[in-house]
Amino acid sequence: MSDDVNEDVNDALRAVRTLRIRGAAHSEHDDRVIVEAPVALLYNGEPFAVMMATPESLEDFALGFALSEGIVAAREEFRLVDTVHVDDGIALHAAIPQARFDALQARRRGLEGRSGCGLCGIESLQAAMRPVPNVGASPAVSTERIRDALTALAQQQPLNALSGGVHAAGFAHAGGLLVREDVGRHNALDKLIGALASHDPAIRPDSGFLVITSRASYEIVHKAATAGIGLVVAISAPTDLAIRTADRAGLTLAAFARGDSLNVYSHPQRIA
Amino acid sequence: MSDDVNEDVNDALRAVRTLRIRGAAHSEHDDRVIVEAPVALLYNGEPFAVMMATPESLEDFALGFALSEGIVAAREEFRLVDTVHVDDGIALHAAIPQARFDALQARRRGLEGRSGCGLCGIESLQAAMRPVPNVGASPAVSTERIRDALTALAQQQPLNALSGGVHAAGFAHAGGLLVREDVGRHNALDKLIGALASHDPAIRPDSGFLVITSRASYEIVHKAATAGIGLVVAISAPTDLAIRTADRAGLTLAAFARGDSLNVYSHPQRIA
Repeated sequence: MSDDVNEDVNDALRAVRTLRIRGAAHSEHDDRVIVEAPVALLYNGEPFAVMMATPESLEDFALGFALSEGIVAAREEFRLVDTVHVDDGIALHAAIPQARFDALQARRRGLEGRSGCGLCGIESLQAAMRPVPNVGASPAVSTERIRDALTALAQQQPLNALSGGVHAAGFAHAGGLLVREDVGRHNALDKLIGALASHDPAIRPDSGFLVITSRASYEIVHKAATAGIGLVVAISAPTDLAIRTADRAGLTLAAFARGDSLNVYSHPQRIA
Repeated sequence: MSDDVNEDVNDALRAVRTLRIRGAAHSEHDDRVIVEAPVALLYNGEPFAVMMATPESLEDFALGFALSEGIVAAREEFRLVDTVHVDDGIALHAAIPQARFDALQARRRGLEGRSGCGLCGIESLQAAMRPVPNVGASPAVSTERIRDALTALAQQQPLNALSGGVHAAGFAHAGGLLVREDVGRHNALDKLIGALASHDPAIRPDSGFLVITSRASYEIVHKAATAGIGLVVAISAPTDLAIRTADRAGLTLAAFARGDSLNVYSHPQRIA
């Protein structure tokens, strides 16, 4: 774990008083719960999205979201200019090149139903199903390396250990396992993608593989493919749309990964 | 389970071929995975949101989403007029009273950043934190009844039993436990809220309590409170924002509920 995560732990957890009921026994306890806060993402002053996220590793999150959503194509195109804490949440202000901003505005204009959306909603079916890029070739990985990465992932979740119910995304590469946590699985992945890109030297997405504590949804696979990750290993189940998206992207999707067992749903050539 | 769920099971699952790796053994198998599809929600012809959801119990989903998001206040104000299957997903067209539609348009105009959003994003921090109504009084429930509801919930998840990784929301009432499943926990709750309202006779939200297989997030608590449910019991962890929202709404939030154990985070008077 990098230092910034440890420094942020206090922002990510909150102390609460809870009544524990264990059969007939009742007792009050101090407990820690994970923080969930609205985080707004703005580009060149224009608001784009609000995500419910855990407010730690926010620099990684801002960069990773821009990369995984295809808003920018490289770390050099992105600069976090301000982080504003307000009553209702946190606003992350980023600067992107004018050409990327124009493309983002065009993407927005292309949406038919422009006027609003709910939590987890986007504004049209077309926008929900943006094309997925094809991931390039990446080396095959042994099942032993996958098992070791899953074991390491289970040991590198400080927020989850303290509060429960937190997702983690890890990237296994030559230097070890880089992990990020969040209340939302897609946010954990965005933080990780940002951490890979901002690592010095940057960790190439085709130099390792992704392990996640959650299910493999469409969004996870789409973000991983957009970031250039060729192998995704999920602990829980995949969805049909995740499999079809992985298939289209040339991405290897494995799920139900526990110990020496896993199921492979697409492009098995990356599992040795 | 009501009949419609069983009829829809074929829309909710898809057959896939998977490569199973168990240590050194590799073998191909037929498997079933849960369907995740973009479902667009339109009111009086205007698109409002797209949710990634499992396409079964869609009538319940459409009604429940409108109720839990405060778009309509009662079942009588909502009519599903068309369900359109297109290449990219499913569009649910509903008719709502003009006054409700005007209020929805005003809510949209009140948002500052109107131009677009990502999956799970909404357009401003203010919109992300809409006020939560206060739930009325509802009777206290014994820990034995909660335990029984959790046991029943575990047995009434046909989609999860076949595919894994599916969430379920159940409402325990005098007539038993009504359950709905979905790839998304908030969608499962929306389906359940719709099923309560469309049940004949309607099942009052203050006549029982909610059990969910997932964590208790802000969204779950906000939707439950908006629908008028006073007691929410989650199997996994709560978030801090879920607890604060429950506190403000006068809603009893219990989490980490397993067997005879649970933790209560707000308004414990509804647990006897």
